Amino acid sequence: MNTCAIIGTGLIGTSLALALRAAGFLGDLVGVDTNPAELAAALDLGAITRTATLDEAAQQADVLFLAVPVLAVLDTLQRLAPSLTARQLVTDAGSTKLAICEFAIPYYNGPSQPRFLPGHPMAGKESGGAALADVTLFQNATWLFTPIADETALEAEWRTWVARIGAHPQDLDPTLHDKLCAWVSHMPQMVATAMSALFQDEFASSPGGMDQIAAVGGRALREMTRLGASPYSMWRDVALTNTQPLAATLFALEQRLAHLRENLRTPELRDEFTKANTFRRKH
Amino acid sequence: MNTCAIIGTGLIGTSLALALRAAGFLGDLVGVDTNPAELAAALDLGAITRTATLDEAAQQADVLFLAVPVLAVLDTLQRLAPSLTARQLVTDAGSTKLAICEFAIPYYNGPSQPRFLPGHPMAGKESGGAALADVTLFQNATWLFTPIADETALEAEWRTWVARIGAHPQDLDPTLHDKLCAWVSHMPQMVATAMSALFQDEFASSPGGMDQIAAVGGRALREMTRLGASPYSMWRDVALTNTQPLAATLFALEQRLAHLRENLRTPELRDEFTKANTFRRKH
Repeated sequence: MNTCAIIGTGLIGTSLALALRAAGFLGDLVGVDTNPAELAAALDLGAITRTATLDEAAQQADVLFLAVPVLAVLDTLQRLAPSLTARQLVTDAGSTKLAICEFAIPYYNGPSQPRFLPGHPMAGKESGGAALADVTLFQNATWLFTPIADETALEAEWRTWVARIGAHPQDLDPTLHDKLCAWVSHMPQMVATAMSALFQDEFASSPGGMDQIAAVGGRALREMTRLGASPYSMWRDVALTNTQPLAATLFALEQRLAHLRENLRTPELRDEFTKANTFRRKH
Repeated sequence: MNTCAIIGTGLIGTSLALALRAAGFLGDLVGVDTNPAELAAALDLGAITRTATLDEAAQQADVLFLAVPVLAVLDTLQRLAPSLTARQLVTDAGSTKLAICEFAIPYYNGPSQPRFLPGHPMAGKESGGAALADVTLFQNATWLFTPIADETALEAEWRTWVARIGAHPQDLDPTLHDKLCAWVSHMPQMVATAMSALFQDEFASSPGGMDQIAAVGGRALREMTRLGASPYSMWRDVALTNTQPLAATLFALEQRLAHLRENLRTPELRDEFTKANTFRRKH
């Protein structure tokens, strides 16, 4: 890998560029973004060496890293495919993998087609943008891959860079990926969004409501609503491409909350706390 | 206040004793606890000067601080009342206030009766015990009071100590207190418990389930389930003494989650994220 194109110089793309450089990557880091402000911020931070259009990146890069929301990954995979050769590798950071894998296979699976290695670093922040980029973002994070073909030398090199920046590469079936992520990432996000929206409706419209929240609310509220700041733009694509697994986890939680609510005054509440305590001791 | 008895030398009681000493309290700090290990730990930390029985504390202390679960506050209020004089003050840290206030009034409201100032420091940790005591636990925390009578000099002095340890005293009606705490503290706790118990059932029983969680789970899961470690012993009393307000908040969240689940593929999802974003910007 001599030239790496970062398609999407937001939080993930810019952090990856910083991390690659810090890990000793000496080649060209080319930034592509439809938002000139994000591109300028990535350039100011020294994360990228130069900017380019998507077409220029397709001509010049050995590896193209797509750090954009899931539907934009699909669009970009389609737009890039005709311009790329079998020597080039596309990889991504999309939050769901089954829709991306199924979409990519017709374009990225033949001997004369370019390669695509679907990936998903388990790292992020509730707010995005190059300005929040962090060279340590991927340290000790799992970096999941859901391969659609046998590994090439360039794919092996990409995995080596992922390890060098401190992440832990791990392979997973795309269907299992989406199910697990629905549980550990997408459902918690939607709970934080629902709780934050509920607090907004319940308190922000009444006089002094937010002052009451500010006075009484502590770490529990802050933590449980932190992800309420997450952007719709990214999560819309997760909801659209992982609807059934996510809906199943939400329904399971709704039933669990109803069960707990109906047992606030029964010994069943003890069983729920015991199970919860056990999970926390193990996790 | 020359002698202050700490009834319950767990996390809250022991932290308060440490904080009082650090803030310049030079009098006697007497520890009372039914658990000898907690008492020994508080003594080892230098948080209390000596231990005593509840009866001895009733004879000797100017102020008795009840740092025990809500039902134990009720028991202790009743046990203490006959032994105390009108010169003495009882105050507490119970998580709910209406049940405590209503219970206390017959014993603590007459001119010859002892005084009771119901209190609730908005501070804590998901795990209890003197071993986790922290001299800074109350710094910048709101310390709510729900007075049942006009203020005496000793109550004013207690408020001064609360301010000296860095907390912010604030008065609230007990019914409003319980409603607000249901929203900002009790409901988030029950959500974390329900989520943790759900993960325990869903993953801990299947082979490799916890390894999958460990590999894929990140900050979102850790944060949203942290309070799953909280002890049943404390929360049972909250659920028993704040059942209706807590059930109402849980039901509201269940409805909100169902609404979000039914709109994963509609523009309504944008409205939920917009509201959530607005709440987080203000809070």
